[in-house]
Amino acid sequence: MLDDVERMRALDRSALLDTVGAFPDQLRHATIIAEGVDWPTMDPRNVVVAGMGGSGISGQLLRDWARDRLDVPVDVVNDYHLPAYCGDRTLVFVESYSGNTEETLSCFEDAMMRGCQTVAIASGGELVARARQRGVPLVMIPDDLPVPRAATAYLLVPLLVGMEAVGLAYALDELREAHTVLSGIQKQLAPATPTDGNPAKQMAHSLHGTIPVIYGHGLLGAAARRWRCQLNENPKMLARDDVFPECNHNDTPAWGESGNQDLFSVVILRDNMEDQDTIDRIELTREIAFRNARLTCEVRAQGEGALARILSTTYVGDYTSLYLAFLKGMDPAPVEMIEDLKKALKTRRADREGQ
Amino acid sequence: MLDDVERMRALDRSALLDTVGAFPDQLRHATIIAEGVDWPTMDPRNVVVAGMGGSGISGQLLRDWARDRLDVPVDVVNDYHLPAYCGDRTLVFVESYSGNTEETLSCFEDAMMRGCQTVAIASGGELVARARQRGVPLVMIPDDLPVPRAATAYLLVPLLVGMEAVGLAYALDELREAHTVLSGIQKQLAPATPTDGNPAKQMAHSLHGTIPVIYGHGLLGAAARRWRCQLNENPKMLARDDVFPECNHNDTPAWGESGNQDLFSVVILRDNMEDQDTIDRIELTREIAFRNARLTCEVRAQGEGALARILSTTYVGDYTSLYLAFLKGMDPAPVEMIEDLKKALKTRRADREGQ
Repeated sequence: MLDDVERMRALDRSALLDTVGAFPDQLRHATIIAEGVDWPTMDPRNVVVAGMGGSGISGQLLRDWARDRLDVPVDVVNDYHLPAYCGDRTLVFVESYSGNTEETLSCFEDAMMRGCQTVAIASGGELVARARQRGVPLVMIPDDLPVPRAATAYLLVPLLVGMEAVGLAYALDELREAHTVLSGIQKQLAPATPTDGNPAKQMAHSLHGTIPVIYGHGLLGAAARRWRCQLNENPKMLARDDVFPECNHNDTPAWGESGNQDLFSVVILRDNMEDQDTIDRIELTREIAFRNARLTCEVRAQGEGALARILSTTYVGDYTSLYLAFLKGMDPAPVEMIEDLKKALKTRRADREGQ
Repeated sequence: MLDDVERMRALDRSALLDTVGAFPDQLRHATIIAEGVDWPTMDPRNVVVAGMGGSGISGQLLRDWARDRLDVPVDVVNDYHLPAYCGDRTLVFVESYSGNTEETLSCFEDAMMRGCQTVAIASGGELVARARQRGVPLVMIPDDLPVPRAATAYLLVPLLVGMEAVGLAYALDELREAHTVLSGIQKQLAPATPTDGNPAKQMAHSLHGTIPVIYGHGLLGAAARRWRCQLNENPKMLARDDVFPECNHNDTPAWGESGNQDLFSVVILRDNMEDQDTIDRIELTREIAFRNARLTCEVRAQGEGALARILSTTYVGDYTSLYLAFLKGMDPAPVEMIEDLKKALKTRRADREGQ
C-alpha cells in the first residue's frame, strides 16, 4: 500500500500529502506574512497563547522553544477563559484557524475586557471580524488549507516572529535554518520514496495495530503531544504522550505489571543534543520498562537551533500519521465525530435558547 | 476480595489503606505545620513549583486551584532546570518528599543561582540539609509516610498556606472546608464499607482489566492526572489522562475508528458547579464518542470551595487505585521498576566517573 502512490492519493481526497509536503515552504511563506504585520511596541510581563487543537498546539511548541531563552513565562490556554493574572502587561495571542472556534472567541473577549496586549491569528471568520472592529493587530493566514492541523506553519511562525518583533527573543535565523533542515528531510519522508529508505513509512508499519505512546523530553515535550494529536486525528488512533524524566516517576512501573503492555508501542523523540545522563536514562528505561512493549522506535532531531530540532521530529509524525491512515484504508482528513459534536452542541444550545 | 478486609490488609504490607484513610486529618496536621513556618515577606511576579512524581503533582493541583484567583502565573517544573525567566521576582517552591530527588535538587541549585525567593519542602535528605545551609525557608514534613504519593496533603498544603502567608490568595477557609468534606467521604470509601455502598470499590471492579482514560476539565485537570499517576503506581496499570474541552479537538475522533476502543474504560471527573454548556459537551461526548468504550463512569466533586471540589475527586481515585491493586492480588506500595532504574542510573554514572 505505502509504495503505491496512486492508491494513497485516491484515499487522500483533501490532498493532505501535498499540504504536508509543502510544510518547509509554508514556514518561509508564513515568515513573510508575519513580518508584514505592523507589530506594536509591547513590554509584557507574561505571554499567553489561547487556542484549541491544531491551533493550540503551536502555543505548546512555542512554550518549549521559549523555556531556555525568554525572560517572561509563556502559558497556553486550551479552554474558554484566560487565567486571572492576565492584564495589561500580558501579551495574548489568540489563534483559531477558522476564526470561529468558540473557546478561542471567548478568550478573545476576555483579553479585550482585561486590556491585554492582544494579537489575533486566523484565516477568516468571526475572529478576523472582531479583531478588525476592535483595532487588534491581526495576522491573516491563508484560508485554503484543508484542515487546521495542516496549518501549523502558519499558526506557529507568527508567534516566533512576534517574539522577535516585540524584542523577547531572536527567531528569524532559526526559521531560516528550519526551512533548510526540513526541506532535506522532506525528500526522505515523501510518498515517492519507497519504504526501504523512508523512516515515516517504516514507522507506520511498526505502529499499525498498536496503541502508540510517544515520549518526548526537554525541547520535545510538545512535539510528543503533536505526534499524539496527529495519530488521533489522521488515522483515528487512540494514543498517549508523556515526557522524560517525569514519566520515570509514575508511568514507568506500569510497564512491569500492567498485563497488557504488548498492546502498546513506544516512540521516543530523541534530541540530537542530549547530555550523557539523559542518554543513560532513556536507554535504561528502554531496557527495564519498554522491553515489555510490542516494540520501541526512535526519531532523532536534526539541525542546530531549537526550532529545527523540534520540527524535524514533528515532521516525521505528520507523515507517519498519514501513512497510518492509508494502511487503515482511510482518508485522513475528515474528523466526523468532531463535526457531529459541534452540530449537536449547537442544536442543544438553540433548543435551550428557544425555550 | 474487596469485602474481605483481612485479605486486603495482608496484601497491603505498607498499610497504605491506613495512610490514605488518614488523608483528611493529614490536611489539618499539614496546615498546622505550614502555619508554624516563619514565612518571609515576598512580592513575586510569578510562582514556580519544582518537583517530580508524587511531589510534583501538588504543583499541578495548585495551578488549577490558582487559575481563577491569583494575579501572577503559576508554572510547574517536572525536570532538572528552571525556565530562563526565573529570577529574584520568582517565588520557587522546591518539593521532594525524600529530599533526595536529583531533578529537584538540581532545580534548588538553579533557584539559588538565580536569586529566586525560594521555599523548600521535604521530610529530610539532602534538600533539608542544603536549605538549612543556605538559610532557605523550610517546611519540614513528617518522614514516616510509606511512599511520596501518600504524602500529598503534606506536599500540597504548604503551597496553599504559603499563598495566604505571602498575600497571594486566601486558602485557610478552604482547607477547613476540605477537611470536613473529605472526612464525610472517607467513611464511604473505606475498606470497612461493603462494595454495595462504596463507590471506590465499584469503580475498581469496573476498571479492572481495562485501560483507563481519566478526563477532567476546568478545576479538575490535574485531578485527572493524579488519578492516572495513582493507577500507574498502585495497581501498575497503563493509563491516560486528558481534559475537556481540548480533548474534543483531537482525542475524540479516535474513539470512532481506533478499532480497539473496547479495551479502554472512561472515567469523567465532574465538577458540581458546571455550566450548562459544559454539561452538554460532556453528555454529548459520552453519546457520540465514549459509547464505543468498554464502559464510562463518573466521579462527582463535592463541597463549595475549589480545594474541596478538587480533592473530593482525587480522593476517590486514591482509594480506587488501592482496590485495583488488591483485585490484581498486589501489594500497592512497591514500585520496583523505579527503584531498579534509579540504581542502574547511579551505577552507570559511577562507572563513567570512575573511568
